Amino acid sequence: MSKSLLNELRPLFYPESVAIVGVSAMGDGAGNRFLQILKKFGYGGRIYLVHPTATEIEGLKAYPSVRDIPGRVDFVNISAPAPHVPQIIADCVAKGVPAAEIFTAGFRELSEEGRKLELEIKKIAGGNIRIVGPNCFGVYSPGGGLTLLPGANYPRESGNVGVIYQSGGWVTDFIWRADAFNMKFSQVVSYGNGIDLNEVSLLEYFAEDPNTTIVAAYLEGINDGNRFRKIVSSLRGAKPVIIWKGGLSESGKRAVNSHTGSLAGDRSVWNAFFKQTGAVQVRGFEELLDTTAIFNYLTPGNYRNLAFIGGGGGVGVAASDISEGFNFKIPQSTTEITNEVSKLIPPQGTSIKNPFDTGSPNTPAQVLERLMQIVAGWTEVDALIINRMFFYGLRELMGEHLAEEDARVAAVMRAKQRIDKPLLVVLEELAYGSDKIDMERDRRSVRNALLKAGIYVTPNVYRALRALNNYSEYWKGAGMKRKAS
Amino acid sequence: MSKSLLNELRPLFYPESVAIVGVSAMGDGAGNRFLQILKKFGYGGRIYLVHPTATEIEGLKAYPSVRDIPGRVDFVNISAPAPHVPQIIADCVAKGVPAAEIFTAGFRELSEEGRKLELEIKKIAGGNIRIVGPNCFGVYSPGGGLTLLPGANYPRESGNVGVIYQSGGWVTDFIWRADAFNMKFSQVVSYGNGIDLNEVSLLEYFAEDPNTTIVAAYLEGINDGNRFRKIVSSLRGAKPVIIWKGGLSESGKRAVNSHTGSLAGDRSVWNAFFKQTGAVQVRGFEELLDTTAIFNYLTPGNYRNLAFIGGGGGVGVAASDISEGFNFKIPQSTTEITNEVSKLIPPQGTSIKNPFDTGSPNTPAQVLERLMQIVAGWTEVDALIINRMFFYGLRELMGEHLAEEDARVAAVMRAKQRIDKPLLVVLEELAYGSDKIDMERDRRSVRNALLKAGIYVTPNVYRALRALNNYSEYWKGAGMKRKAS
Repeated sequence: MSKSLLNELRPLFYPESVAIVGVSAMGDGAGNRFLQILKKFGYGGRIYLVHPTATEIEGLKAYPSVRDIPGRVDFVNISAPAPHVPQIIADCVAKGVPAAEIFTAGFRELSEEGRKLELEIKKIAGGNIRIVGPNCFGVYSPGGGLTLLPGANYPRESGNVGVIYQSGGWVTDFIWRADAFNMKFSQVVSYGNGIDLNEVSLLEYFAEDPNTTIVAAYLEGINDGNRFRKIVSSLRGAKPVIIWKGGLSESGKRAVNSHTGSLAGDRSVWNAFFKQTGAVQVRGFEELLDTTAIFNYLTPGNYRNLAFIGGGGGVGVAASDISEGFNFKIPQSTTEITNEVSKLIPPQGTSIKNPFDTGSPNTPAQVLERLMQIVAGWTEVDALIINRMFFYGLRELMGEHLAEEDARVAAVMRAKQRIDKPLLVVLEELAYGSDKIDMERDRRSVRNALLKAGIYVTPNVYRALRALNNYSEYWKGAGMKRKAS
Repeated sequence: MSKSLLNELRPLFYPESVAIVGVSAMGDGAGNRFLQILKKFGYGGRIYLVHPTATEIEGLKAYPSVRDIPGRVDFVNISAPAPHVPQIIADCVAKGVPAAEIFTAGFRELSEEGRKLELEIKKIAGGNIRIVGPNCFGVYSPGGGLTLLPGANYPRESGNVGVIYQSGGWVTDFIWRADAFNMKFSQVVSYGNGIDLNEVSLLEYFAEDPNTTIVAAYLEGINDGNRFRKIVSSLRGAKPVIIWKGGLSESGKRAVNSHTGSLAGDRSVWNAFFKQTGAVQVRGFEELLDTTAIFNYLTPGNYRNLAFIGGGGGVGVAASDISEGFNFKIPQSTTEITNEVSKLIPPQGTSIKNPFDTGSPNTPAQVLERLMQIVAGWTEVDALIINRMFFYGLRELMGEHLAEEDARVAAVMRAKQRIDKPLLVVLEELAYGSDKIDMERDRRSVRNALLKAGIYVTPNVYRALRALNNYSEYWKGAGMKRKAS
């Protein structure tokens, strides 16, 4: 693995100056939009515009070509039409620009001509400039002040998750929805057709990058299967790699070809890949999101025996059924545990067995806290799941009870400090009416408080257990036995 | 089937007067909460309180027993401790009260004593009073002005969905989340242990009720399997019955026993039940919600061949992969269709094959409308799915583009009028940050506009296709072939 990537890609991720090729004097080019979001996002370096005839656009000086820009240029964003791109790359090379992104589509995914254009660009680049794209959304680098469309309001704060994404649309959702887990990113790269930087080189970068401890990827095809396999394998147990492989179905393969012109590959090949490398295989967008995020919240281990604490019996029934589907066990509580729990909650309308049912989300905070401690002390249990114990609709329904809700949240956070087992909280999105947006606001505020206390929060038990299963299987594969209590 | 149930249960669902037994003079009883929500909900009939010693509580006169109430009493809500319930029911019978709900828990699900209490109550009731519960949340009857805890803010508007729910916690969520589909209810009954009214009699009621055209149920056990099978079968093809059976796993059976004291039954028995009766089997809360709702939006048929119109190529890849999992087909577009579509959308960064990718959610409204018409005219396609074509985050990101968004929504609604095939819209919940609640508000407003135009809207393709698959299988089972175009 080349040790130089961290330095080599520095101008791409932390450019001191950016040039935009593809701005229109009328203001409606993709380059203009890129300029706008770059400003809104708060990019701090110099911005140069390139336009064949205009000398000033949107209050900034424009130059006829990248070559004519007086100062140093670290990174060029290109959204000019495909046939112009080879010349623009030639200008970049002549100017000594180290990195560029080709946003423009219409290459190999479209036609044979497009494929030839890609080859021409590669030849002109000649290893002197690193390229993201074409047919991509580019780079979101919170630390470097770069963002991708339409992420003017993405967080500026950096994090520990590196993202390799072959789809632009999905990647914008991924960054937004990461909010739900307080997940932040080191770098996010949407690389499209990947004629230069691709899943292999980007993974090599993340392997080197000390800020990146988890890698999430959406892949449509693979450029160098052997090399990719080797890097993923080398990261096993050190930096989890979570991969959603798109296009494993027959019609999906067709769609992949129309999208990025990639060869999707066969299911059997990919199954073997996951088995050999220990990468976590996920099968959809939310599963990728949930599974990536859980690695930030739990300590490594294979957690198989669960205890549920829930406010409602039906909730416990569903949790049991879902657990079986993921091969989790719900141990029957011992007489000792049952006796202890029976001192805490009344017998009517509750369950003092696992799943434990306190009868209502309106459980007194101290009861919930004590219950969590008792259950966490039970040696046969590996992980605790708190399910439907918060009821953020209370403000709207009965404002006077909100203090109880706050006390319950605080109790869970206190209990978390004393529990050395994974703790997951399920916090449903209850109210979907437009007139009930305050309930959703309350839910998010409870969620954020719990996330900040280091507690993994998900909107339903199914998603919680799917993520926990992926997590546990990963560590089992990496050689960890059941986590010792 | 008794033809009298509609009349017999009228006092339960549309009571002209309600008595509450279980109010505390201190204001903290379950009956007090019931009183509060009943008032907030706007119940229009007379309310009487029953208390052994107090003569006035919360400004209302209290009577020592139901017998002492001067006027007629249609419905009694009971939350007094279990051992008192037999006497209260005896009072109700003496008074000639036709219906009661026993909210109180601590019966057969708790102990042998509790089981005996239930038998005693049944004996006292002697067929003279219809009872919901015990160990239940009771009745939400928007037309009758009745609601269950904590539904003070549930809609007062009635609808066409009848709900039979053996869990109180889930049922409160179900009513709230029905908002997401603009789904309204005729009656919702959480019946818990079901010593009198249960899944059998409630289904008989809904079978008779002309306002109810769809029945959704969450069941833990069955009281009279043969009778239930017979009624469900008789409704096949007339009133869809969608059932989530909880407790099919081993630990789920245990949980069911702790929850409602029901016998959960074996998976094989239930599989046979669904096969014989044609009821729609769902396996979780969201699936029950989504599947029930879809029956309100599509015309009966077995829809197997799908066309996707999406703003983004990766979105199409995922849609293809998910389709395969549900045995949907995505026909390859004919040369004719491809040619027509190619006149509408530029070739770069798009796909003119199925899945159709317009390249971006920012597609001009007239392009989207025309594209929908072309695809809907394609005979090989049974249903259209619009995927990621709205971008309600625009107001926050670039306020000036919101008019385009509105135009796109209007275009889809216009197209819907001219399309005689099912149309589903996927509208993702993008932004999860507490600071981005306005994006969610915008999403809900777009969603509501589409729902009102008769378009089924779901938050992701997986949920859309799971519901459409259940729907298609239902009508296939009811003898419908592939819907003729």
